[in-house]
Amino acid sequence: MPKVAIAGAGLVGALNACFFAQKGWDVEVYEFRPDIRQMEHVPGRSINLALSFRGKSALEAVGLKDYIVNQGVELSARLIHDIDGETLHRQPYGQPGEHIVSINRRHLNEVMITEAEKFGNHKFNGVKFFFQHKVIKVDSRKGILLVNRIKEGDQVEVEADLILACDGAHSAVRRSLMTFPLFQFSQEYIAHGYVELNILPKNDKFALEPNVFHLWPRGDFTLIALANIDKTFTVTIFAPFELFEKEMSTEQKVVSFFKCNFPDAFELLGERHIVETFNRVRPLPLVSIKCEPHAFHGKVLLMGDAAHAMVPFYGQGMNAGFEDCLVLSELLDKFNDNIPTTLDYYSKTRCKDAHAINDLAMYNYNELKDLVNKTLYKIRKTFDLSMNRYFPKFWIPLYSMVTFTRIPYHQVILRRKWQDKVLRRTIYSTVLIVFSLFGAAVWKRHHQSIVQVLLAGLRRLEQRRF
Amino acid sequence: MPKVAIAGAGLVGALNACFFAQKGWDVEVYEFRPDIRQMEHVPGRSINLALSFRGKSALEAVGLKDYIVNQGVELSARLIHDIDGETLHRQPYGQPGEHIVSINRRHLNEVMITEAEKFGNHKFNGVKFFFQHKVIKVDSRKGILLVNRIKEGDQVEVEADLILACDGAHSAVRRSLMTFPLFQFSQEYIAHGYVELNILPKNDKFALEPNVFHLWPRGDFTLIALANIDKTFTVTIFAPFELFEKEMSTEQKVVSFFKCNFPDAFELLGERHIVETFNRVRPLPLVSIKCEPHAFHGKVLLMGDAAHAMVPFYGQGMNAGFEDCLVLSELLDKFNDNIPTTLDYYSKTRCKDAHAINDLAMYNYNELKDLVNKTLYKIRKTFDLSMNRYFPKFWIPLYSMVTFTRIPYHQVILRRKWQDKVLRRTIYSTVLIVFSLFGAAVWKRHHQSIVQVLLAGLRRLEQRRF
Repeated sequence: MPKVAIAGAGLVGALNACFFAQKGWDVEVYEFRPDIRQMEHVPGRSINLALSFRGKSALEAVGLKDYIVNQGVELSARLIHDIDGETLHRQPYGQPGEHIVSINRRHLNEVMITEAEKFGNHKFNGVKFFFQHKVIKVDSRKGILLVNRIKEGDQVEVEADLILACDGAHSAVRRSLMTFPLFQFSQEYIAHGYVELNILPKNDKFALEPNVFHLWPRGDFTLIALANIDKTFTVTIFAPFELFEKEMSTEQKVVSFFKCNFPDAFELLGERHIVETFNRVRPLPLVSIKCEPHAFHGKVLLMGDAAHAMVPFYGQGMNAGFEDCLVLSELLDKFNDNIPTTLDYYSKTRCKDAHAINDLAMYNYNELKDLVNKTLYKIRKTFDLSMNRYFPKFWIPLYSMVTFTRIPYHQVILRRKWQDKVLRRTIYSTVLIVFSLFGAAVWKRHHQSIVQVLLAGLRRLEQRRF
Repeated sequence: MPKVAIAGAGLVGALNACFFAQKGWDVEVYEFRPDIRQMEHVPGRSINLALSFRGKSALEAVGLKDYIVNQGVELSARLIHDIDGETLHRQPYGQPGEHIVSINRRHLNEVMITEAEKFGNHKFNGVKFFFQHKVIKVDSRKGILLVNRIKEGDQVEVEADLILACDGAHSAVRRSLMTFPLFQFSQEYIAHGYVELNILPKNDKFALEPNVFHLWPRGDFTLIALANIDKTFTVTIFAPFELFEKEMSTEQKVVSFFKCNFPDAFELLGERHIVETFNRVRPLPLVSIKCEPHAFHGKVLLMGDAAHAMVPFYGQGMNAGFEDCLVLSELLDKFNDNIPTTLDYYSKTRCKDAHAINDLAMYNYNELKDLVNKTLYKIRKTFDLSMNRYFPKFWIPLYSMVTFTRIPYHQVILRRKWQDKVLRRTIYSTVLIVFSLFGAAVWKRHHQSIVQVLLAGLRRLEQRRF
């Protein structure tokens, strides 16, 4: 059986381990951090995760879907909180029954590592996790990973038939490929950062309605809240770094900022918790990464955030990463485990999709900030959902295509453009027809008098003699 | 005196060495390659260099301008070669006397290294060049370069008050800064590659007119030729990689491609030379790099291609890099050698200029390919030059601002936009006035008859009775 070396035991690395363990490959995973199952506190970003159809499909393929979904909280709509602290607006995500699942990053990661190990035990070839092993760089031509063994204090070379770089937005593997011929790359930090807070249960119950995505859109800054299964809410504020500096730099300022802008959330978060959090942490940045190709020398593949870190505003980061694993597995099956052919095909098709979801996430950055409150946006949303109810295959709203289908992301954009065109033409034609009919009706009744008015005018003009 | 460590002894690194040697700083330069003054063949890209005002100003500041300029060939116009192999069109670059200087990269580099060493000898602190010392990475917080000593086979740490990364488009220093917070970065390879050829002297004379920039624009591909002081011409073909694959992949194909598209150049290059070159080399890629900031922790500065590699179509790569050195030197003087303040100010202002010249170079990519043959482009060019003759301060053509002034690149773009606006408004106003006058004249002579015709028409309409 071929051997796969995976850089990173995060969500995408661990899921890849499951896939390849299931195939019976020899699997080795190298992870910088200690085993998170034994860690007390896991540093780094969380932003609650929203599992949608693409992610679920990938989990299903390794038999983990039901187990994971049962430990999450279903969300079926956005609930917009007005600035008065009372008025709420509900925007369903899709048709009744369509929902996403709010899930805990750490728990998900732990489950997948354990499952990958279990898979390994059933087979001749094992799955080995090497924690506190930091991947330094790759030799893509030879298929060799250079790994720092932190505890031992030495370096080892790991050779494999296939190397999967799942080492996140700041991928060391990708960094060592920067001089690969014609490697297109960009990393763009947006002006917004984020800070995470928590809302505790109230009398052992959810303090807010649990099965919705809570949203406090305030133009250039936004608060969101997602329920966890332990009845807490993970709350995230997104704002420009400048605004954090200006309006949230002292205890007094941050309290009055939350009180003014999110009065209802302020009550639930509590003044002390807000102050403590802002004293403890600095706002974290958000980066959008695009690159092409994703495959190198038929041996190395960038996946997940290493290939396409995106801003979190479409809730698709993890889902796109999980779909990467599923697509790779499907292609290996299609090409009979021929690694170079698979990688070549994967890169050619998946890059387009990665760019597309990156763009969509950036587009939603604006939508979440502000658009959700615009009338025209709401009308379109309602129209799309009604159309979808009557023509479920023919007309799928943008959000639903991304969230509730596996239509390749780049086709999602093409289909949306087509919908826009159809809609525009329908509106133009309707306006034209209505006006023509109206015009004809008026003409039929009044044409004589119209001509007479014109004639009278011209006669007067003639008499004035310039 | 403070110590500066420079990564790279290429054009920008060597010029920086001159500047800091002149200031009397302690200067160390680390270069991966052996001393080019002792090398027989220098690998890597050349594309003949065109020295213009910004580059000259920087050389002048270290007293090297006249020496260098005297060893180059002055170019005062573009000479466009038609596909018939005979017709020529001349487009002057600027006013009489304005020109750029075609120069040999290697020679320039050698002179600067020698001069920097000489500077060093006059002062207490020396200038030391360490060849075959490969910079691996930087610790920007501590101000330490990690350097591989190739001959010794070991690594050393170099500490300095200021570290200048002049290690080119694939800068190792920049690569180790990729995870710096909010570091914006993109590298974009264009679809075109290039191959270099040579035209030898004919009877010990230039085979083509020497004091012009020869250009064979053919839509999607282009040939250029620049004279050297030894009476040869360096010839470069730019074409999409696809076209190299399709039309220049065999000896027969490449010969007929040159014969068809550049008949006059083909005669001078010679069939054998073309075939030999294309057998020996593969087309090289062209990359455009943008990043921000250029300064890190008040200690490290990216300069030249490491900060802003650009496509070569404005002939500004070297000039922008040289101007970097001049700007840095001027700012250090302004801020009394306060390094963090200087670096902070440099990065804030120079990034904008780097992005601007990057964009202009990409814009000229299209201009050189095709635009030079368009009538409207030629009219505008002539108009700009005439305006410039009468209003030399008020109206400077785009090319002249970039090439013959030190107006900051980002202001060049603003001024061009302003020119476009003035021109557009002048044209609109003129058209409006002409039409109004014409209309008034016609009306005065014919208004009665016009009204009569209208009246007659309406009467006929009325009589038809719908």
